[in-house]
Amino acid sequence: MGEGFAKWKLGPDEELMPLIDFANIACGFHAGDQNTMLRTVRSAIKHNVEMGAHPGLDDIKGFGRRAFAISEEEVYALALYQIGALKAIVEAEGGKLSHVKVHGALYFILRDHPSLLRSFLKAQISFSPDSPLPFVGLAGTPHEEISKEMGVPFVPELFCDIDYDKSGKLLSVPESRAPTEALIRERLARVLTKGETLDNDNNPLKLPFLGRSFTICLHSDMPTALANVMAARQIVDEHK
Amino acid sequence: MGEGFAKWKLGPDEELMPLIDFANIACGFHAGDQNTMLRTVRSAIKHNVEMGAHPGLDDIKGFGRRAFAISEEEVYALALYQIGALKAIVEAEGGKLSHVKVHGALYFILRDHPSLLRSFLKAQISFSPDSPLPFVGLAGTPHEEISKEMGVPFVPELFCDIDYDKSGKLLSVPESRAPTEALIRERLARVLTKGETLDNDNNPLKLPFLGRSFTICLHSDMPTALANVMAARQIVDEHK
Amino acid sequence: MGEGFAKWKLGPDEELMPLIDFANIACGFHAGDQNTMLRTVRSAIKHNVEMGAHPGLDDIKGFGRRAFAISEEEVYALALYQIGALKAIVEAEGGKLSHVKVHGALYFILRDHPSLLRSFLKAQISFSPDSPLPFVGLAGTPHEEISKEMGVPFVPELFCDIDYDKSGKLLSVPESRAPTEALIRERLARVLTKGETLDNDNNPLKLPFLGRSFTICLHSDMPTALANVMAARQIVDEHK
Amino acid sequence: MGEGFAKWKLGPDEELMPLIDFANIACGFHAGDQNTMLRTVRSAIKHNVEMGAHPGLDDIKGFGRRAFAISEEEVYALALYQIGALKAIVEAEGGKLSHVKVHGALYFILRDHPSLLRSFLKAQISFSPDSPLPFVGLAGTPHEEISKEMGVPFVPELFCDIDYDKSGKLLSVPESRAPTEALIRERLARVLTKGETLDNDNNPLKLPFLGRSFTICLHSDMPTALANVMAARQIVDEHK
Repeated sequence: MGEGFAKWKLGPDEELMPLIDFANIACGFHAGDQNTMLRTVRSAIKHNVEMGAHPGLDDIKGFGRRAFAISEEEVYALALYQIGALKAIVEAEGGKLSHVKVHGALYFILRDHPSLLRSFLKAQISFSPDSPLPFVGLAGTPHEEISKEMGVPFVPELFCDIDYDKSGKLLSVPESRAPTEALIRERLARVLTKGETLDNDNNPLKLPFLGRSFTICLHSDMPTALANVMAARQIVDEHK
Repeated sequence: MGEGFAKWKLGPDEELMPLIDFANIACGFHAGDQNTMLRTVRSAIKHNVEMGAHPGLDDIKGFGRRAFAISEEEVYALALYQIGALKAIVEAEGGKLSHVKVHGALYFILRDHPSLLRSFLKAQISFSPDSPLPFVGLAGTPHEEISKEMGVPFVPELFCDIDYDKSGKLLSVPESRAPTEALIRERLARVLTKGETLDNDNNPLKLPFLGRSFTICLHSDMPTALANVMAARQIVDEHK
Repeated sequence: MGEGFAKWKLGPDEELMPLIDFANIACGFHAGDQNTMLRTVRSAIKHNVEMGAHPGLDDIKGFGRRAFAISEEEVYALALYQIGALKAIVEAEGGKLSHVKVHGALYFILRDHPSLLRSFLKAQISFSPDSPLPFVGLAGTPHEEISKEMGVPFVPELFCDIDYDKSGKLLSVPESRAPTEALIRERLARVLTKGETLDNDNNPLKLPFLGRSFTICLHSDMPTALANVMAARQIVDEHK
Repeated sequence: MGEGFAKWKLGPDEELMPLIDFANIACGFHAGDQNTMLRTVRSAIKHNVEMGAHPGLDDIKGFGRRAFAISEEEVYALALYQIGALKAIVEAEGGKLSHVKVHGALYFILRDHPSLLRSFLKAQISFSPDSPLPFVGLAGTPHEEISKEMGVPFVPELFCDIDYDKSGKLLSVPESRAPTEALIRERLARVLTKGETLDNDNNPLKLPFLGRSFTICLHSDMPTALANVMAARQIVDEHK
């Protein structure tokens, strides 16, 4: 959420906010800016939506989706800067940050480079060393292992608007098919009834974390974002 | 301090840091970026220099020195974002923010628009409502009056590398003469012995706050910054 | 047109392009970027739309609508850079620039500061000194007078989605009411039948240039942009 | 040259300009901005230095040295935009672009991805299809082969302040040692007398293009840039 920039809007945030439980709020590096963040935080608070930091690579021109080399110190600095900025806005408005969910190319970089993930988590822990904010990420990958190793609560997330390959590896937005509402419904209903989803070839795919608590991630920047989220909300509500 | 940006350096920060007591650290909007901020914070901590947030207008291209219209909400958001980002870096490194000093055109805008200054201070207070960080600014102007009205400690600052006019009004960097080391020495010695400085016509100028505690502000981006600060340091040390 | 930026879109350019005769294409300083510009140029060529450069202040964060001080040399440099960049894209795609129309705050700054307008026109002339591109602007203001003085063809433009005050002075987007389709229709029909429009109090307003050739300017970034342009197109077509 | 940005300077351009024959001028994407470009062009003209476009990746935060994926269309657009912008400034000031030399990560990307180089050269050719500007690059690589295939004159360049490996492959700035004046002297003297240089292990290295005309590339952003260029100039002048 809050993935506009300056004059520009991106997703239908006003329509989405009443439909969701958790918002990952862009922090100004891949999208978002201080004004957009303030509006987004106010809207989340109004709709009782939990607010997470959604930091990304320092790359507005590439929307944080262009992977490039980055050092441990750079990861540490970008995490502190972005989480710190959002935290200040959230707390000034009377709210509280609930989690951290990394954006775009940085999400995959941290999955694939344990030393960079450690730098990131070191920053995340610094905000509340006694009870770090949870890290929301990919179960069964270093996201989970290193979070646990460093004492950071880990929350697995399920994707239903982008694809997994048959081995259960998550594909990025550009690597995935454009999702349809029907596919989102089918995947989620299957997850909630059978503990499995469909991979990028529409074959059943077991995801081991589905027996635990998890969050469901949907992208607000997709052209069909509102329909996607409405579909997901409906399926979830039907299976409560 | 920390007024580089990405690849670019500005002042001789490494040389200056051992010479000063307080650093105003740029927060990424007029200059500075997360990596520069981290390096600057580490250097300040190493040299036992107190660290203040130095937020500016959201205008890298203009180095925060181009005045333009800004709303109360925008001021509030930019203060939260920048102070929050720096605070996170400072605290992760084991330090503590000591004050807030506004940069460039925003400094003058807040002096001249009380409602904008109130928005700024509302943000500043939100970080520690019970004991707000001090605001460093222009004595005898709304900087001082409104800080006091809102319960924010106020610290007057003296400039010796830019000019005051004969009424005691501070001129901006572009409006001032380039300072010489000799002028800085002369002004400061006069301040410390007679409680007066020299205005932009080299006439004696009484500044009412000189009987109180104050800080001395010097610019790190001037070509002669190192000589300026060495001169000021020497005069101050001689008058201890 | 082309006022998206990086990942972000702004107006409904695809829908608008078939409806218009001339496009003012953003050049990357207030909006637009090289990729958006290329797409916009290709779309304009496909729809036989004449392409003009739409340079603005160097201020993405403010969408070129925050007025600030700028020097003659800065105006000269920004005009060269932006027009040159767009011209290269247009010509590589087999097209030809037809005119120059300045954006946002810079449009008003050039109206109000003849020396800055001269710097701008000096840049504009440099692209084709023997037959400068026309400058599209405000009739009866320095836009017109100085263009003529410097040998630059001048084309007056009429606004129908923002307001004139009763003296005929154009108001900026933020100073104007949000336009309705009905108001656009009424104003344009009146222009085309009576040679007058309505001011911001809905009183008839004579605009002296209406007896000459002129263009009609509509903003693609308004929420009602498509309806506005469809309404204007229809009225124009009915009065051909 | 011209690799400052906004308020920030980088190399000692004023001192370097009298010492060189050709300047590669940054065009605003990895460094440079319209004002810096104008100053740099004026200085080059004053010192009779030939001016080449030095376009880079659209990545100010990474100084164009962070490699990331880019499409053919994006390469085409960034080449048109940057070369077009610089050409406009050069020609308005009475000069003429003499060549194109790509910057940073993009230089290596174009060496390694022929289809991207073709897109780039398509843009370069569009400025003067009958007599394209020369492309300055790495002899014996696709830089040379594809330039020739597309009818673009090719000029080989020799580097003496960054390293080649023993196979003659050029290393990037971060992969190379910091050069010393002595090493630059030794390498260049050897090139000019024996037609060979030294690789990154200080072993003799034959570079096949050294029997032909070539240019010598030095970086203005290195801390020792002025000493490096003075050393190179002296060796070249001694061997004229």
